[in-house]
Amino acid sequence: MAPRTAADIRRSNLFQVLRRVFAGAPTSRQEIVAQSGLSMATVASIAAELLDAGVLLEVAPTTRGKGRPLTRLALDPEYGSFVGVDVAETYLHVTRYDAALTEVASVRREVDGEDDRVRSPEDLERHLTELLAEVAPDRSTVRAVGISVPGLVDDETGVSVYAPSWDWRGLPLRSTLSERWSLPVHLDNPLKALMVSELWHDPGAAEANWAVVNLGTGVGAAIAVAGELYRGASNSAGEWGHTTVAVEGRQCRCGGTGCVEAYVGAPGLVAFIDQVAPGHPWTSLGETAAVQGLSEGVASGDEVAEQVVAAAGAYLGAGLANLVNTVNPARIVFAGWVSDLLGDALLAAARPGVEHQALARPLQSVTMTRLTRPGNAVAFGAATFALEASLSQAHTEGSR
Amino acid sequence: MAPRTAADIRRSNLFQVLRRVFAGAPTSRQEIVAQSGLSMATVASIAAELLDAGVLLEVAPTTRGKGRPLTRLALDPEYGSFVGVDVAETYLHVTRYDAALTEVASVRREVDGEDDRVRSPEDLERHLTELLAEVAPDRSTVRAVGISVPGLVDDETGVSVYAPSWDWRGLPLRSTLSERWSLPVHLDNPLKALMVSELWHDPGAAEANWAVVNLGTGVGAAIAVAGELYRGASNSAGEWGHTTVAVEGRQCRCGGTGCVEAYVGAPGLVAFIDQVAPGHPWTSLGETAAVQGLSEGVASGDEVAEQVVAAAGAYLGAGLANLVNTVNPARIVFAGWVSDLLGDALLAAARPGVEHQALARPLQSVTMTRLTRPGNAVAFGAATFALEASLSQAHTEGSR
Repeated sequence: MAPRTAADIRRSNLFQVLRRVFAGAPTSRQEIVAQSGLSMATVASIAAELLDAGVLLEVAPTTRGKGRPLTRLALDPEYGSFVGVDVAETYLHVTRYDAALTEVASVRREVDGEDDRVRSPEDLERHLTELLAEVAPDRSTVRAVGISVPGLVDDETGVSVYAPSWDWRGLPLRSTLSERWSLPVHLDNPLKALMVSELWHDPGAAEANWAVVNLGTGVGAAIAVAGELYRGASNSAGEWGHTTVAVEGRQCRCGGTGCVEAYVGAPGLVAFIDQVAPGHPWTSLGETAAVQGLSEGVASGDEVAEQVVAAAGAYLGAGLANLVNTVNPARIVFAGWVSDLLGDALLAAARPGVEHQALARPLQSVTMTRLTRPGNAVAFGAATFALEASLSQAHTEGSR
Repeated sequence: MAPRTAADIRRSNLFQVLRRVFAGAPTSRQEIVAQSGLSMATVASIAAELLDAGVLLEVAPTTRGKGRPLTRLALDPEYGSFVGVDVAETYLHVTRYDAALTEVASVRREVDGEDDRVRSPEDLERHLTELLAEVAPDRSTVRAVGISVPGLVDDETGVSVYAPSWDWRGLPLRSTLSERWSLPVHLDNPLKALMVSELWHDPGAAEANWAVVNLGTGVGAAIAVAGELYRGASNSAGEWGHTTVAVEGRQCRCGGTGCVEAYVGAPGLVAFIDQVAPGHPWTSLGETAAVQGLSEGVASGDEVAEQVVAAAGAYLGAGLANLVNTVNPARIVFAGWVSDLLGDALLAAARPGVEHQALARPLQSVTMTRLTRPGNAVAFGAATFALEASLSQAHTEGSR
């Protein structure tokens, strides 16, 4: 990560303004100044440029209280549309948003059956092309597509460096799909997408440093520092799912042993069911059904479910404490399908471990909550990074 | 951490200029511009202000090659002196530097004997007052004192929040000593001091994100993001020594179990000696002598020493891999007295674990090296944060 140059600061200011306009919906230049700490000159100049480009529009002022009515800014839905794609191990989810980031059309395809399983990059490209056509029959209205793929992604080159679910390495997804669709495509992973989604929805809270934890088939985290996604030296920061909580512990699919993911990812939960109750019917139906079973089991006080959640929670607690002690975030938000189904129980089971292992001072500064925003946050985040990337390019070029 | 306001950016630019003048020793405005990405207007204005204040001086230009000779800038040693204090569990080290950060006087007192052990805050205050008088008989030439104390520190209030070695909690060291000495005092912990020291010595490399790992009685890390010390939500970021590598593992003095420090801190190494060779003479002489014994043992091929280093190395490796996977730093630098005595052997023993547990991409981007800079890097870092804090205050007030 290079030091902040004038261009970085311009880009960061641009994102601040965009996110605050979105979250304020609508909001005034004065409110943005008050909330962001940016100068009025900066906010006014960015707003003027975005109004010019058609990204923002001015909303008729409404009088509130005694003050002079303020012109408010909003994202202009007419600017075009952005598509966000959530490529998961067990499903594909594609959503089209207008340029005010309101959902226009959404489609989800399960790919965990024998017939529709994604086996090759070509399978994925075919599925995504079909789904894109469903949400955007007229592709010419789409300004850009953001795609989230699990694993390690090089966002600068648009390459899926390593996707553990399919064992793909060095796949140039961005250039392949961008060429096939004649559209700008931006690639990153679900954690980065989730974090950018949160930064859009809550730009005020995002001023603090912050972590998003994804609990799904894979497990990972994203970190924000001072309201910006922290990528690390090679966009690999936040590979928390592959941090060790048990030296010489369980084998993980990454090749390591004792990783958080090996205990807390969906296959790790299935392994705990096998351990607690060998041959239990939940394990024969695939990981989605098994986690669903655990979720229902916890609700009905089933003993196997409670033992599994307690066992996994101990490892999750240690892993979360490591995140708290290393990163000292103000907030940890939990997302992902395992979190949606089983998050409350897992977090409750993890809490004693977090309290035992985290130091008092960073523990006091952190809140842990489950993401409950409606819609697919990964697809939303993918669409916002497509929007950010296209505007940032125009903005930086415009300022030369 | 608040978003970067104009004052933050001014402060960050000030530090960039100061550090590059120090590392360049001397350097020109043009070189600073080329290396830092700051504008000439910014560099020239900061330089003018620092020249005015007497912090910098201009050095007679030397002609190099065919170019126009450039006026070079240097820190002015006459500006006053800064004292850096390294409070460790087993010794106290106090160094006075001139304002060009050249060491003027240095004194070290061992405090691991029965008679001189630090038992109360009053003991520490008395020791430090005596040592300060030794390095700075005329206290009026001292501009500020920076003190590093182990454990959790609130840098803003100058309180030692928790010092595990003495079980001190909430000790207002800064106000006590500042009042006693009638001098500005700045407080932080050794990791933060080490990182700031590195950022001064190597401002170019510091552009990347980066970690410093301290191996001593306690174990910890500091993280830099984009060339700046990353503090987290409550100045607790980098408490890597208390991250779990073994759920339900060894008891740690923090109250947790299975922490990196419990295996890799000096008492952890002593515990491994006891485990490998119960009653071994190394363990009866205190932790400093034990680590010294291990160091000599490794050099002479002693089997006990090799087994201990291998055992501790496995846990160190998992801990380092966690840092690599979570933070994705470009560089990890090892410091501290255990690193000085045993670092090469421990790092060699840790490497297989790091390679096994770290993901390929963040592993490829990280280099790991032992700090070999002469002098006490913690005392130097403490002096630099005293210098930075006093200039930053003057600078921010001056710009109002």
